Amino acid sequence: MATVKYVEEADAGPEVKEVYDDIKKTFGLPFVPNLFKVIANHPAYLETTWARHKAIMVEPGKLDRKTKEVIALAVSATNNCEYCINAHTAALKHMGFDDEAITELMAVVDEFNGFNKLLDGLLVESDLKP
Amino acid sequence: MATVKYVEEADAGPEVKEVYDDIKKTFGLPFVPNLFKVIANHPAYLETTWARHKAIMVEPGKLDRKTKEVIALAVSATNNCEYCINAHTAALKHMGFDDEAITELMAVVDEFNGFNKLLDGLLVESDLKP
Amino acid sequence: MATVKYVEEADAGPEVKEVYDDIKKTFGLPFVPNLFKVIANHPAYLETTWARHKAIMVEPGKLDRKTKEVIALAVSATNNCEYCINAHTAALKHMGFDDEAITELMAVVDEFNGFNKLLDGLLVESDLKP
Amino acid sequence: MATVKYVEEADAGPEVKEVYDDIKKTFGLPFVPNLFKVIANHPAYLETTWARHKAIMVEPGKLDRKTKEVIALAVSATNNCEYCINAHTAALKHMGFDDEAITELMAVVDEFNGFNKLLDGLLVESDLKP
Amino acid sequence: MATVKYVEEADAGPEVKEVYDDIKKTFGLPFVPNLFKVIANHPAYLETTWARHKAIMVEPGKLDRKTKEVIALAVSATNNCEYCINAHTAALKHMGFDDEAITELMAVVDEFNGFNKLLDGLLVESDLKP
Amino acid sequence: MATVKYVEEADAGPEVKEVYDDIKKTFGLPFVPNLFKVIANHPAYLETTWARHKAIMVEPGKLDRKTKEVIALAVSATNNCEYCINAHTAALKHMGFDDEAITELMAVVDEFNGFNKLLDGLLVESDLKP
Repeated sequence: MATVKYVEEADAGPEVKEVYDDIKKTFGLPFVPNLFKVIANHPAYLETTWARHKAIMVEPGKLDRKTKEVIALAVSATNNCEYCINAHTAALKHMGFDDEAITELMAVVDEFNGFNKLLDGLLVESDLKP
Repeated sequence: MATVKYVEEADAGPEVKEVYDDIKKTFGLPFVPNLFKVIANHPAYLETTWARHKAIMVEPGKLDRKTKEVIALAVSATNNCEYCINAHTAALKHMGFDDEAITELMAVVDEFNGFNKLLDGLLVESDLKP
Repeated sequence: MATVKYVEEADAGPEVKEVYDDIKKTFGLPFVPNLFKVIANHPAYLETTWARHKAIMVEPGKLDRKTKEVIALAVSATNNCEYCINAHTAALKHMGFDDEAITELMAVVDEFNGFNKLLDGLLVESDLKP
Repeated sequence: MATVKYVEEADAGPEVKEVYDDIKKTFGLPFVPNLFKVIANHPAYLETTWARHKAIMVEPGKLDRKTKEVIALAVSATNNCEYCINAHTAALKHMGFDDEAITELMAVVDEFNGFNKLLDGLLVESDLKP
Repeated sequence: MATVKYVEEADAGPEVKEVYDDIKKTFGLPFVPNLFKVIANHPAYLETTWARHKAIMVEPGKLDRKTKEVIALAVSATNNCEYCINAHTAALKHMGFDDEAITELMAVVDEFNGFNKLLDGLLVESDLKP
Repeated sequence: MATVKYVEEADAGPEVKEVYDDIKKTFGLPFVPNLFKVIANHPAYLETTWARHKAIMVEPGKLDRKTKEVIALAVSATNNCEYCINAHTAALKHMGFDDEAITELMAVVDEFNGFNKLLDGLLVESDLKP
């Protein structure tokens, strides 16, 4: 059980309800994910977080949506966030990633988490710069 | 200065030298990156790490090389590893990423590092599963 | 189940028992929290850790107790430590924090975990210094 | 040097310029911090991030501004983000924190980063819940 | 349930089967640990990861096996990886570590996780260098 | 420059001075490390932290001092704390570790930081328990 209440759709005030409707429509989901139901305990935080999410993840940009989901999963694996690992693995499988592709993604996560700590732990100096 | 010596090409034994030559050829670089020069203090670690790197990052798979570099940069930003941030930003710029694309990538890193901690910090239960 | 035994009050030697009594009195709890029951496997570690805890968290200082609990929760959310998230959320609720206040706290945790990684990932230079 | 360009005020388009003016006014600063100058490489990300920042940190809520700066510093110390450590230590000193108060804050950060890993490392079960 | 399938021994192709047999023989285990059963979704990743594991952990070197298991547990506690905490605590107990020794190990993990963040959070300069 | 002052020996009050003398004697150092000079901004935190450090790191226990320094370095590499990486690499070199041994230690840090994130990122279930 979360440490704060989930603001259920039935209990949402009008501004929260409006955001909830847009969330369900944008994701094509019949329900509002728990992530947003906890954020809704602070309505201005919900509204601005949702607007920012659309700017970062939904609006067309230079990276396609699939690449953004890959980044979200790589970050969430590095942080060990079970909620996001579940959500973004589900999203990638929905976009066609099979077990081999997910494992390939995690092989890169594995390799660079290791290299990051090796390089830091030996205080290795940068010799490849942009 | 790193805390262990860089094994320079001139000082490398024959098995290390062989790996060094393959590294330069594979990356198209005129020198061996410091990452591998510290690993070379333990030759069997160098040989197996390089073989694994090729299996994960170089051999064709289900993810293309650009996506793998994106993952490497997202992981390295999350871990704050300056060496890898430099190296993989350089690689992505070489592959055509401009400042807008790099910033867009980091916007996703920013958003999900935040969400990861929010979800963990409130013990939110998974409702989106693969 | 923890990977080491909990040293139960009934099994505690005299120095451990003395610390346990002070823990229960200081926290106003009818039992010794598991945190201290595992530390008690190393009695000198228990005694010095408890003395230090009182110096840091209990003795009057420049920051009040509520602010210290807020810091403890922010750190624990950033590290994803479920035990501490539970314990410090409980403490803050006991001090009057409601779901709105806890969510507001986590909004700050969310925002700065994101900004930290963005700033690191782009190697942004400090321009605001103390 | 950051890995992407700082969007300088002189080079900013009208929407970015409008946000920049609000940033300077809100913070009472004669310049735009580098944090926002890199975000500005993606204007919609800048606008929504700034709106969200005001909702989380600037608008009155249940936590006062000082407490929010304390959280920001505790999180940034836990993540080792030098930019944010500098910025939020500066903010707290400006609000009256002296070296003793900053050290007291970091004592709590020290203690709970340690406890978090001890509790995780021994798989200790929660016995204090909200 | 893992997010990708476990490649069971009965379903493994010949190269994976060969690695599986060596894993069981090397560890003296009657089954293949789940770690390797997920890696096996990408056979070249399995083969090179196993070869590297033997070079790092199994081949004789300057550090003995017990010290390497201690490092593995200290790292896994710092990262809060439950799978590895379980596996390496089991290995150390098998090698003779009792509850007092495991707690002593975690006391060091506790202390330095705390010191690391204190030193970072105050931007303390190095005065002890190799 | 640290964000708080270093309490220099010449400026230390009597209780801080007493701890400083014990620190120099215990470490066999002609000066007090910066770590303790910042902690000294809060004298009760210094006294209890030093007492705890002696209980954890200096008093004889089930793990020898060298193993404890190895743990300290493995944790500090995983957290990327430059001060502690420098200090504990120096300590280990003083105890006889050469570049090969330090690299071997970091190979284990590399491998398990990678495995930790792979296992977390795929939500792999524990099958090896103590």
